Amino acid sequence: MNKVKLAVIGLGYWGPNLIRNINELENAEIKYGCDLRFDLIKKYSLAYPNITFISDYNRVLKDKNIDAVCIATPLSTHYKLAKLALNAGKHVLLEKPMVSSVEKGEELIKLARKKNAILMVDYTFLFTGAVSKIKALIDNNELGKIYYFDSERINLGLIRQDNNVIWDLAAHDLSIILYLFDKNKPLSVFATATKHLNEKVEEMAHITLELEGGIVAHIHVSWLSPVKIRKILIGGSKKMIVYNDIEPSEKVKVYNKGIDISREKVTPFNPAYRSGDIYIPKLDNTEALKLAAEHFVKCIQKKKKSLMDGDKVLMVVKLLESCDKSIAKGKKIKL
Amino acid sequence: MNKVKLAVIGLGYWGPNLIRNINELENAEIKYGCDLRFDLIKKYSLAYPNITFISDYNRVLKDKNIDAVCIATPLSTHYKLAKLALNAGKHVLLEKPMVSSVEKGEELIKLARKKNAILMVDYTFLFTGAVSKIKALIDNNELGKIYYFDSERINLGLIRQDNNVIWDLAAHDLSIILYLFDKNKPLSVFATATKHLNEKVEEMAHITLELEGGIVAHIHVSWLSPVKIRKILIGGSKKMIVYNDIEPSEKVKVYNKGIDISREKVTPFNPAYRSGDIYIPKLDNTEALKLAAEHFVKCIQKKKKSLMDGDKVLMVVKLLESCDKSIAKGKKIKL
Amino acid sequence: MNKVKLAVIGLGYWGPNLIRNINELENAEIKYGCDLRFDLIKKYSLAYPNITFISDYNRVLKDKNIDAVCIATPLSTHYKLAKLALNAGKHVLLEKPMVSSVEKGEELIKLARKKNAILMVDYTFLFTGAVSKIKALIDNNELGKIYYFDSERINLGLIRQDNNVIWDLAAHDLSIILYLFDKNKPLSVFATATKHLNEKVEEMAHITLELEGGIVAHIHVSWLSPVKIRKILIGGSKKMIVYNDIEPSEKVKVYNKGIDISREKVTPFNPAYRSGDIYIPKLDNTEALKLAAEHFVKCIQKKKKSLMDGDKVLMVVKLLESCDKSIAKGKKIKL
Amino acid sequence: MNKVKLAVIGLGYWGPNLIRNINELENAEIKYGCDLRFDLIKKYSLAYPNITFISDYNRVLKDKNIDAVCIATPLSTHYKLAKLALNAGKHVLLEKPMVSSVEKGEELIKLARKKNAILMVDYTFLFTGAVSKIKALIDNNELGKIYYFDSERINLGLIRQDNNVIWDLAAHDLSIILYLFDKNKPLSVFATATKHLNEKVEEMAHITLELEGGIVAHIHVSWLSPVKIRKILIGGSKKMIVYNDIEPSEKVKVYNKGIDISREKVTPFNPAYRSGDIYIPKLDNTEALKLAAEHFVKCIQKKKKSLMDGDKVLMVVKLLESCDKSIAKGKKIKL
Repeated sequence: MNKVKLAVIGLGYWGPNLIRNINELENAEIKYGCDLRFDLIKKYSLAYPNITFISDYNRVLKDKNIDAVCIATPLSTHYKLAKLALNAGKHVLLEKPMVSSVEKGEELIKLARKKNAILMVDYTFLFTGAVSKIKALIDNNELGKIYYFDSERINLGLIRQDNNVIWDLAAHDLSIILYLFDKNKPLSVFATATKHLNEKVEEMAHITLELEGGIVAHIHVSWLSPVKIRKILIGGSKKMIVYNDIEPSEKVKVYNKGIDISREKVTPFNPAYRSGDIYIPKLDNTEALKLAAEHFVKCIQKKKKSLMDGDKVLMVVKLLESCDKSIAKGKKIKL
Repeated sequence: MNKVKLAVIGLGYWGPNLIRNINELENAEIKYGCDLRFDLIKKYSLAYPNITFISDYNRVLKDKNIDAVCIATPLSTHYKLAKLALNAGKHVLLEKPMVSSVEKGEELIKLARKKNAILMVDYTFLFTGAVSKIKALIDNNELGKIYYFDSERINLGLIRQDNNVIWDLAAHDLSIILYLFDKNKPLSVFATATKHLNEKVEEMAHITLELEGGIVAHIHVSWLSPVKIRKILIGGSKKMIVYNDIEPSEKVKVYNKGIDISREKVTPFNPAYRSGDIYIPKLDNTEALKLAAEHFVKCIQKKKKSLMDGDKVLMVVKLLESCDKSIAKGKKIKL
Repeated sequence: MNKVKLAVIGLGYWGPNLIRNINELENAEIKYGCDLRFDLIKKYSLAYPNITFISDYNRVLKDKNIDAVCIATPLSTHYKLAKLALNAGKHVLLEKPMVSSVEKGEELIKLARKKNAILMVDYTFLFTGAVSKIKALIDNNELGKIYYFDSERINLGLIRQDNNVIWDLAAHDLSIILYLFDKNKPLSVFATATKHLNEKVEEMAHITLELEGGIVAHIHVSWLSPVKIRKILIGGSKKMIVYNDIEPSEKVKVYNKGIDISREKVTPFNPAYRSGDIYIPKLDNTEALKLAAEHFVKCIQKKKKSLMDGDKVLMVVKLLESCDKSIAKGKKIKL
Repeated sequence: MNKVKLAVIGLGYWGPNLIRNINELENAEIKYGCDLRFDLIKKYSLAYPNITFISDYNRVLKDKNIDAVCIATPLSTHYKLAKLALNAGKHVLLEKPMVSSVEKGEELIKLARKKNAILMVDYTFLFTGAVSKIKALIDNNELGKIYYFDSERINLGLIRQDNNVIWDLAAHDLSIILYLFDKNKPLSVFATATKHLNEKVEEMAHITLELEGGIVAHIHVSWLSPVKIRKILIGGSKKMIVYNDIEPSEKVKVYNKGIDISREKVTPFNPAYRSGDIYIPKLDNTEALKLAAEHFVKCIQKKKKSLMDGDKVLMVVKLLESCDKSIAKGKKIKL
């Protein structure tokens, strides 16, 4: 099978990670790296002599040898760059959270379908060993009926100019929620957020998301915390999970704990705790971005849909938009 | 000065703690313990031979030697028992969160004023070494302009029958917020909450409270977490605090960290981090309940108002009521 | 069956814990508490009105109703007080580490045998849920061949006058080692220790103990650490254990980790790691001292030998003596 | 000033780290990478197109443009490779722990002196922000009289074939000890160690090192621990330090804690604790290896002695040799 030939657009934070990981794949080859900043072009030209680093995106689009384009530029440029690439007959990998509106996302999805192109969004977290393990535990019904998902994703962060902390950080949690609970449709979203340091962009937010089946998801994101916390609790009727992403080697703890209402006959509202063993499963340590890139390349080669195809992940954009709407109106948004 | 003579009503969870602590005070003496359950009367009679344990509350009310009554019964009985005690001429210490409605609270406050009696509510947290230290740091303007207060108070908890997790756990945080930011009036409250195990009482809740001066407080309480977390973050423009109440000896960490907008000239929305030393102050380890009991006794002896006098802490009840209202209506409640 | 009637001698740190726990047993009754300090007699008389608190030990010895005596006085007095009690026909519970020399221990054991009395030493740790679980794991061969036992027991501690940090803290570890590896006889002991603050008593020590079967035990004890650590690692060919006694609820972690020499064919000295799941078993939370007291009472009632009978635990004293000898001579002591 | 031109010998674990760091220096340039394995030559040729990767060490030695050679090969080859380089007129950076015997080390030092060459040993830890901060605290007498240094450096490690765990891991601690306490000469060393998995190389060891001034250092190293621990305690009469190298951002904690003998009049052996604030200083985060490489290059340019010149760090080799001797003889070795 021929190697898939790719270009990486955007050499800021994420682009170089993409280059490093795709570079290690057997069935892929990076031909171009592209950015408007000459210092970055110079820097990576030295590091990767086999890749051509350029500032002109059109050269990538016109090169018939290029199969696919990975777009790791600021969110506001995603729509335009992806549209150009799809129209030029390229497959597209877009950085999360895809595009800045549902409307633009739908247009790209339609275009990709017309062009028979793969349009994948890079929600890297879904390829981590931790999330894969949690997905398997939920699908095997080890947790029982799911009660809640509760995420805290805070640190002293880079205050971005172009989008708020929800679009930056909560996008991860929303993608994880939609992936883990793919059978439970989101019903409503409510968000509160505050701007302390500037007048345009919220730095702290709390989001409540209701899903079918009584699942309640809550997400706390902040760029203003003195400590870095990346912690997700998932509670079910049989077991509960603590997923601490800061922990270097023991990220996922499965607690055989819960509350047995059935045990109490006379006082149903005063149930006993149930507390058992705790189990820390071994996780696959492969770098998630490598697995994501590999998946993208395979989808191109085998002409099959990606697990994170545009239409699947467009809901994340819809939820992000709804968060902004909820903040603006101060009320719950039905989906 | 004569010893203050007290009765403790309710021998469930908190009452025996009150007895143990008041017992160690020099200027106080417990004469009665009172409960309807005979097994508890028997148990504590053996443990405290000098205290008379009885089931008849009227004996306490009629005894002219009794100066004050400490009420540690279920919340639904607080109003009735406190009213009887005040009418009988006793000072009253009520367990948090005082009473189940603002209306009842106002009636008790008026009655106490009329009777010239101390009516104190036992918000023990305000007497801890940790909260005292944080109060001093804020009052000395060490944190700068306060941005946020963020509390997580979750564990696998006793599901109560008579009031929800907000009245049970968030009451602590609300009292701490009102104490720390006594110059910033609460403006609005918004709460979401869910019932997974029964149809009457919420087990999980998220509360957003806006205060004057742009302070945003958020409280996450739950009886359904597999792990116990008692963590408060307070962020200011100069310093930030992490208060971890689970930590046995290093509860309060002061981070000389923040974000300097001023440093960045060209891109004000992309400011640099400021990161400095961390400082863990030594805290007073005296048991908070002992200090609270001591304060109550002194207020009686010196006829002065308590730091947690009814009219000061009634706002907690008002906020709790507003949380319930917000949950019922699905919207923000102005105060 | 008649209740066993006991006296507790010594009301310092450990005696009151004994009283509190024995008090809760159904088949036992404390008749006397005994101490030379009148303030302690007064304090506990108020707390326990049903117990007679006295300063005269002879009254205990002469009282024919007393079955057993629990001795919680300084180590230097153990021998004398235990001998008097045994000669008076009482069963004896001695605080760890029994007596200050093997010679005295042997004399007491002989005397107890002659008098047909129970002589138990209170190594409370052996009754904890953590040590019981570890003992079961080892006995079920879940760890495979045992390689090592490594304990760190350090804090900012009370500098004692009458015995060094080894007799104070390492006694716990030695009792745990002898209990866990009861089939592997100790072969040699080597200890180093230092006196920084005074000229009589060592405050820091490191002990290496060799046992049959190639097990090497190491114990680090100190009264001069700024942080409190209570951590034991046990390594076997199949699994390894970390027992962290500071941890409130997850004390014992079982690691399915090791090194597989067999896997490597060409380079036997460069073997691969084997890393699997981690498991945190639920532990029995009953207070260990209660279980120890219960065991003592049952041994008296059923006239059977205690699990910690004098002749079984005399080896701890022998090892402690050997540590002192090793420090004095600067060399390994064969046992 | 001309750039210093270097070659890196050995492309296993440490060599590529050297290349990456030296590559970022302004006043240095790597011309050669050298290894006997062709797969490594191929791999790094692709990654660093400006460096010539070869297998023939003689080409490096003969190239008159090469100023210095960095030797990152197995320890057993250090002596031979360094000798060749010095004789060829090159400066030499040797990986820790220099060479496998004091005799060889002395020969190299003499040769370097004769050739007027820099002979530096790369004890990277001494360039970390943590060790630099601790050194400053000790030199400023903030800790008071030093009582002890206690290191635990354990994990599930690569079992090496050519040298034991002491030469692999304890070498770090010994270099730190000699650096921190450079005014206190080592007096004696005692080591115990065990071989569980093979007959040649010890996998676990405990070392006790006595220094002038009453400082006692203890080092626990192991390749057989299920958990990774990198923790050093340093106790002084005024303050104590905990240095936890696993901690991502709060590595050094300074405890204002101790024991005040002076406070106690009557019972000098029963002193009170002194417990104050804790302070976590901000550390320089620059990668230590970069600072070490920079230092080496500057020493060459300015013809001045390195902080880790051969004669300064030869004592580490002497202590390592003495550990082996102590294990073989089962007794303390005077230095």
